[in-house]
Amino acid sequence: MPTKRSHSTARLLFASNLRRARLQCRLSQEGLAELSELHRTYVGSVERGERNVSIDNMERLAKAVGWELRDLLSPMDGE
Amino acid sequence: MPTKRSHSTARLLFASNLRRARLQCRLSQEGLAELSELHRTYVGSVERGERNVSIDNMERLAKAVGWELRDLLSPMDGE
Repeated sequence: MPTKRSHSTARLLFASNLRRARLQCRLSQEGLAELSELHRTYVGSVERGERNVSIDNMERLAKAVGWELRDLLSPMDGE
Repeated sequence: MPTKRSHSTARLLFASNLRRARLQCRLSQEGLAELSELHRTYVGSVERGERNVSIDNMERLAKAVGWELRDLLSPMDGE
C-alpha cells in the first residue's frame, strides 16, 4: 500500500494540478488513463498524491491533458 | 543496466538543467549527492538522463541546487 505519510510538496502540487487539468479537459480518470496508457487506479492514486510518480509517467500524463509538465508543477493563482 | 533507448524529452531536459544548476552552484556530483542525500552514481545517471527519476527525488535535487522544480523542467534560453 502506498503510504500516506511524508507526501512531498511537489507530489501534492502535481496531484492537484493534474486533477484540475483533467477536469478542464472534461476527462474521467478512466479517460485520462486510456489517453496516457496508464491504469485507472494508478491515475487515481497519482491524483491523491499517493504515488512517487516517475518523470516518464508525469510526461505521459502532461501530454494526455495537453499541458507542459512544468506547468503541472507550478502553483496556481490563489493557492 | 539502465537502457539508453527511449529517453523522454522531460528526462533529458531535467538532466541538462540539473547539471547546469549544479555547475552554477560550483558543486561536484559528489557534493550534490551529499546535499540531496542520494548516491553519487545515482546523481550521475540522472544527469545523463538514464534514470526514470521519481518526483520525490527530483524535489530533493531541486532543493539541493536551490531551484524550483518547475524551472528544472523548463527549456533554457538558446535551447
